[in-house]
Formats: sequence, structure tokens, C-alpha cells
Amino acid sequence: MGTGGAIPTLERSHPSIAVFFNGEYILLDAGEGTQKQIMKSGLGFARLTRIFISHLHGDHFLGLFPLIQTLSLLRRKKRLEIYSPAGLRDVLHELVSKAYLEPRFEVEVFEINEDRSFDFGKYEVNMFHVFHGDTQTFGIRIKEADKPGEFDVKKANELGVPITMRGLLQKGMTIKTPSGRVVYPEDVLGPPKKGKLLVYSSDTRPCKAVVYNAKGADLLIHDATFRDDLKDRAEKTGHSTVGEACTIAMKAGVKKLALTHFSARYKDKDLDKIEKEAKSLFSNAFVAKDLLSVNL
Amino acid sequence: MGTGGAIPTLERSHPSIAVFFNGEYILLDAGEGTQKQIMKSGLGFARLTRIFISHLHGDHFLGLFPLIQTLSLLRRKKRLEIYSPAGLRDVLHELVSKAYLEPRFEVEVFEINEDRSFDFGKYEVNMFHVFHGDTQTFGIRIKEADKPGEFDVKKANELGVPITMRGLLQKGMTIKTPSGRVVYPEDVLGPPKKGKLLVYSSDTRPCKAVVYNAKGADLLIHDATFRDDLKDRAEKTGHSTVGEACTIAMKAGVKKLALTHFSARYKDKDLDKIEKEAKSLFSNAFVAKDLLSVNL
Repeated sequence: MGTGGAIPTLERSHPSIAVFFNGEYILLDAGEGTQKQIMKSGLGFARLTRIFISHLHGDHFLGLFPLIQTLSLLRRKKRLEIYSPAGLRDVLHELVSKAYLEPRFEVEVFEINEDRSFDFGKYEVNMFHVFHGDTQTFGIRIKEADKPGEFDVKKANELGVPITMRGLLQKGMTIKTPSGRVVYPEDVLGPPKKGKLLVYSSDTRPCKAVVYNAKGADLLIHDATFRDDLKDRAEKTGHSTVGEACTIAMKAGVKKLALTHFSARYKDKDLDKIEKEAKSLFSNAFVAKDLLSVNL
Repeated sequence: MGTGGAIPTLERSHPSIAVFFNGEYILLDAGEGTQKQIMKSGLGFARLTRIFISHLHGDHFLGLFPLIQTLSLLRRKKRLEIYSPAGLRDVLHELVSKAYLEPRFEVEVFEINEDRSFDFGKYEVNMFHVFHGDTQTFGIRIKEADKPGEFDVKKANELGVPITMRGLLQKGMTIKTPSGRVVYPEDVLGPPKKGKLLVYSSDTRPCKAVVYNAKGADLLIHDATFRDDLKDRAEKTGHSTVGEACTIAMKAGVKKLALTHFSARYKDKDLDKIEKEAKSLFSNAFVAKDLLSVNL
């Protein structure tokens, strides 16, 4: 949704990533302007279920409150879950009690202080500490649940499985056919399809936690605030350079690397060069752009 | 800067108005996206001196915090003054203490609980109560200081005023010429040029306070959230209709009326119709558009 750094530009909004599953989507961070990016994306507001905030720097969460106001004005009834480092609940409370932010739907804030894992059935989310100076910051790992393998109709016919019992096998249950034969799911199902793995580093210096969590990921979205000539700035501000992000991607053996959170000093033509440089280090690296959609 | 209502659209950002004087500008309200609108406007950030918040509904002030973050990242040193209904200071404090909003320049918040007037020399600002349901809301009146009249060089020569003394007369002081003649400022200055008057109703039902404060204004910027067929919605939500805004403008005898804060239900083609309807009631009415510039 947004691929800018701490200062947005006309081309790049503050950070936010929408992860869309079948029928719902979640947001990773929600910087200023996220609601407008949602409007532009065509995702709509109704299917948004959860928001994960990596850390409480303004560019990563200040779009949350105007988004909540809009959801309320649009008469949302469904609960919204927010996962965030500690502090967000107090800020939200202050806006509710001192200003007039009055969501007419349930907003549940889960505050995270240590590495945590949440299983939502369709997908699992891990929030793990990364290194962004003195600011408590989480990387976010999203593992889609494995899906059952393909159903082998021919095999099921051979084994005499009635059509009415096939759904049970697909759900992983063992059945007994009318002729008394016991059929196990693995008799008629191909190997399970592995769920996709997406990891978002958030703002961080290069760190082992990202390598560990992103092992074999289908997509790693990594902080690449600076070019390598400004490595001292990256060190000082707790960010990564383009080259450092590529090294992390190689160490983790990810399939694709999306570079994001670019400093406002880089214009579109600089970013074309940055992409070339990155590809020379890691061929599946690319520069993320606002509203870019990646199908995994 | 932004002319949308509570829910922004792709064409209309949340409310904000920049009032530019010679060398500085102030903001009236700062909804989400105000910093991006400032970037688009070309005004730059350095000349921003004061921000006046009409009321604490999210669409009118939630762009303030990301703007403060950007000003800090741009290494602003100059103080920023914020005038707002009570509550803003606590929210800002919570963001500073619980999140990581750490402006490296002075942000001074003046909280207003009753009608107030502030004289800044170059201009005077009145904040006066309007009627926006249960929410304490201020209209904002900006009166540019009168400027001294034109200096009559011919007259000054006739009276024998030395060139070195002419500045004193222009500053309003009385002088005695070398030949002993007393010269008063009005002897050599034309009538003072009246400063311009701009009034912003903010969100409000039609009210006498706006008529009173906008008497003869050069520009009235008025809430026109709904068309007249939705007057019941306007009453229920504490807003004005287009026709009501025109009536207020006529009662106050303003020179120009800018209609703003349109409901997201109206698209650009509706607004063309709305402008025609408004002009039929008050010929100097027009529909405000994002980034529209009006020279007074």
C-alpha cells in the first residue's frame, strides 16, 4: 500500500502492506494515508480483519486512527483486531476519551512485549523482535496453512468410495466404505500443498531473526532505506541498506525479495538504478512501489 | 488543502486550509494527508508558523501528528504554535510518552475553552463557538492588520519633510521639520488600507455567530456537507446544507463564499450541479476544490 520511509513523498506513502487471503485481508503497519491507499487498491474496507503494527514510530501507525474513524462512519459491525507493541492502547484510549474518536464497533488491541505466535486457522502470524535502535520493533512472519492435496477421483472410484463420503476424506477423516473397506485420507489425496510464507522485516538493521524466520520464504519484504554508500546513516538510524537487505535474502534463501521503506532523498530514477544494483546481487530482488500487487 | 468531509475520497482530502500572508502561513485544521497536500501545494514546510484546530473530530486534526513528525525529521528548529479545544495536549503527550513521537523543536499547545482573540501583529485570529452537535467546535476569523495608507511624496516635499524623517511618519509618529513645522502622519499618508477578512465556519449548523463574525468578510469558507434535500441529515449530524451556507453568506454580506466539507456521497459531477445551485442563490458562491488557491 505504501512504500515510503519516515518522510512520505508524492509517489510513496507511509508504510503499509495488505496481505490478501481468500476472502479477507490483513494489514502490516498503517501509516498516514492507508485508508486512501485502500480506496485506490479496490480491496474495500469490509474484508479487513486484523492490523499488525510493527512498531510505534509515527510513519508506521498514524493512519490507524483515521482508518478506524472511517470504518465506524461506514457502519462497520465486525470486530477489528490490532496487534501492536505496548502503548497503542493508551493512545487509542486518549483519542476516545479526550477527542471524539468513538468507534461504533469493537476494536480489540493485543499488546505484544515478547516474540509471539498467533494461529488464526487459515494462517499463522509470528511477531519477532528485530533491531531498530532503541525502539521495540517486530518483524512479522505470515505462514499460510497447508492445504489438503488434490483429491484423486480415479483412485476413489477404484476403492469404491461413495460420493457422499469423499468430503470426509478431504477433511482428513478415515472412512469405511459400504463394502467394508477402510480408506485413509492419504489413499485418495495427493501430498498437501504447502502454504505460502511471507516475512516483513519492518524497520531494522540486518539481523539473524529475519534470516531465521524468513528461511525459504516465498517473499521477504525488507527495509532498504539507504543505498550502500550511506551505510553509516543506516547504522545510526537502525535501518538497512539495499545491499544488506540482499545479503539477508540470500542467507535466508528466499524466493523473492521486495525492497521497501526508501528514504525520501531517492526519486523514481534513483530507484530504477537501485533495482538494477539489487538485481546484480540477488536476481529476484525488486523495488516495491505503492499499490504494487504480488501474487504468491 | 483538503475539502472533503468526514470520509475522504480520492479527489478530496480531509479538511485543512492554508492561509498565506507575506512570508508565513497558518493552517486551519489538519486532517489526514495535510503534509502531502502541503508538498503538492509548493508552500513548503518552513514558513508554517501556527495551526488552529476547530474541533477534535478525527478528520480535522489527525494529520497533525504525522506533520509534526515530518517537521522534526526535516530538522525544524522554529517553534510551532497549535491552538485547539482542550484534549489535544493530552493526546500529544500520550504519543510522546507511549509512542515515539519526539519533536526536536518546540510545540506549544494553547487550549481554548471559550471565545478567544489572539493578536499576532500582522493578523488577528478569533476563535468563536459554533454549533456542531455535542462537540465543542470553533469557527475561525482571521483579520489581516490594516496597512498604512500611501505616502504622498509631493505633499511631503511641500511641507519640507526631510527624507530621513519620512519613515517616522509612515510608522505613525508626529515630527517637527528643521524649519519648525509640526507634521502629522495624516498630513502625508492616504487613508489606511483595510486588511482582508477571512472566516472559516468549520463544521456547524447555520448559526448567528458565523453571521456576526463574517460581516463583510472578503471570504467565508462554510460547511456545505449536504444538498438541501438532506437537510434532516444535516440537522442530525450538526452540519449545514448548501442552501443554508448561502443564506448565512447573504446575511453576513460577504464578498465570496467557498463551500467545503462535502459528504463523500457527492462525486465531481454532483459538485458541478451543486455549484450551479449555489450560484443561483448567491452569485459569488463556489465549490472549493483540493489545492484551490484564492487570492484576496
